[in-house]
Amino acid sequence: MNKQGSPPVQIHRLEPKLKKGLTVVITGHGKGKTTSALGMALRACGHGMRVCIIQFMKGDLYAGEWDGVKLLGDQVELHKTGKGFCGIQGNPYPKSEHRANAQDAVALALEKMASGKWDMVILDEINNALQLQLIDLEQVLEILAQKPPLMHLVLTGRDAHPLVIDLADTVSEVVEVKHAYRKEIEPQPGVDY
Amino acid sequence: MNKQGSPPVQIHRLEPKLKKGLTVVITGHGKGKTTSALGMALRACGHGMRVCIIQFMKGDLYAGEWDGVKLLGDQVELHKTGKGFCGIQGNPYPKSEHRANAQDAVALALEKMASGKWDMVILDEINNALQLQLIDLEQVLEILAQKPPLMHLVLTGRDAHPLVIDLADTVSEVVEVKHAYRKEIEPQPGVDY
Repeated sequence: MNKQGSPPVQIHRLEPKLKKGLTVVITGHGKGKTTSALGMALRACGHGMRVCIIQFMKGDLYAGEWDGVKLLGDQVELHKTGKGFCGIQGNPYPKSEHRANAQDAVALALEKMASGKWDMVILDEINNALQLQLIDLEQVLEILAQKPPLMHLVLTGRDAHPLVIDLADTVSEVVEVKHAYRKEIEPQPGVDY
Repeated sequence: MNKQGSPPVQIHRLEPKLKKGLTVVITGHGKGKTTSALGMALRACGHGMRVCIIQFMKGDLYAGEWDGVKLLGDQVELHKTGKGFCGIQGNPYPKSEHRANAQDAVALALEKMASGKWDMVILDEINNALQLQLIDLEQVLEILAQKPPLMHLVLTGRDAHPLVIDLADTVSEVVEVKHAYRKEIEPQPGVDY
């Protein structure tokens, strides 16, 4: 009995009759796409699953998740394959170099998926990489086609391709209602990076 | 030099001139609100921050994050204060009991915020709790008013109140584009719970 005199809660455990690896797309222009994928990684680790995160394009700006995932131990592997956002102000690398890095990331993704070692593979910012033509639609379709049936595949980044959305099981669009940076508040550790 | 013969990436570290604790609201009907808050917790831990998560309403269905956050060690504390979603089919508890639990959760939130011990406090599903009148608008406004200036406060749940949105710094609405359950796919561990 708690202080209201009511009985304690009964905790149930869901267990799907049919296990299925889902393809999840998190797109849109609001805050919380990579963040959402990181939350799925944390949740999956709670189930004892193994998660491989491949970050496309990012890699030139320190992000708290690089150290955060280390706390999860060897259930999680995080690969930074890129050199920052292609085409944004201040990024000094030519598009050819961004493309070469993104091509490496695709190869790595296919290799990790084929290894059978991972219960969830997260391809962070792959949607942008496609939209910026650092990778080709055929490559993303190949990744979707190669997904092992029981492995969850998570694709993040703005401007997800309509065909990718068609092929996914669950798709969320994160819409910006407001963002602190529009009030000239600088990015803050823990929330923004 | 990597195999493309290009120089390795230079990693920069952002450091805001003015540190500020943000109020972040993650609302909407799509998948990825709690998940996004969990990702912020993981990211914050990477920065060495301490995170307190209070889950309103949930608590009757096992969720992977309950064990996932344990992997993050004593940087994170997670409190389950509820007895499942009030008003959904199959939930056996009367509204008065849900309200009593939610009232306890508000008191706990105020206590944790006042303790000075936490860099981030996540109030998971508090928006629903307000919308379902398990707590009152004045209580949420009191929480927002009591937020320490350097502490990040994250409020999740569908149907965020317009006044709460007005007072927040960053607000994302997660829109459902599609969801696996509409194809009769059962909730899957790691992704859905």
